Amino acid sequence: MNKIEHIGIAVKSLKDSNTLFSKLFGEAHYKIEVVKSEGVNTSFFKVGENKIELLEATKKDSPIAKFIEKKGEGIHHIAFDVDDIVAEIERLKKEGFEVLNETPKKGADNKLVAFLHPKSSNGVLIELCQEIKD
Amino acid sequence: MNKIEHIGIAVKSLKDSNTLFSKLFGEAHYKIEVVKSEGVNTSFFKVGENKIELLEATKKDSPIAKFIEKKGEGIHHIAFDVDDIVAEIERLKKEGFEVLNETPKKGADNKLVAFLHPKSSNGVLIELCQEIKD
Repeated sequence: MNKIEHIGIAVKSLKDSNTLFSKLFGEAHYKIEVVKSEGVNTSFFKVGENKIELLEATKKDSPIAKFIEKKGEGIHHIAFDVDDIVAEIERLKKEGFEVLNETPKKGADNKLVAFLHPKSSNGVLIELCQEIKD
Repeated sequence: MNKIEHIGIAVKSLKDSNTLFSKLFGEAHYKIEVVKSEGVNTSFFKVGENKIELLEATKKDSPIAKFIEKKGEGIHHIAFDVDDIVAEIERLKKEGFEVLNETPKKGADNKLVAFLHPKSSNGVLIELCQEIKD
């Protein structure tokens, strides 16, 4: 784990929350990205070496829509930057963590990603992510 | 907001969770701190320029005990490092955020801290913290 890459926050309205977080940070989001495969619109803010990713559901059955229905808006996951996601998945499986994506998938922000089930990590949904290099 | 200072995670057993997070990060916590005024035992892990703070309640009526009773273990708050917490409280109040501590209080890790009510910040409990310099 090199660093916290970003913190993902589930929001009902990306527009309203972009305004809110701009006021919080005193700076606007620096990009918007649609991730069709996950059914989300995302926006990114920079804070120090980390990012805050706001996540808005684009369909009713997306994980973010379900999360908000169950728990309301709030922190959804923490993503850690890793150098070798395949090796890290193997290492964490051996340590007893339940990995939701045995094979990493393409996520937002040009990353390969894999999630750990919150029940194996103290109720925290953890994302591993590795920058895709061309 | 200079950076994310730490992410606070509510846990039932600091001992068990120290073991779990050591496996996650491949590195042990670097300190334990008891914050009597808040009714918590805390431990700290380093990840990049950030910290992860685990929080275990020491009494039944502590905010962490109530949080776990209501929501289970999981991410409790995000703390942002600021240079001037008094000025930041004033700025955020003007921006419409509900500040829970009009006057900053002494928190863990040699910090002055103040919290924003999650209802004014997208369901996210936000801590402002400023290093106490002697």
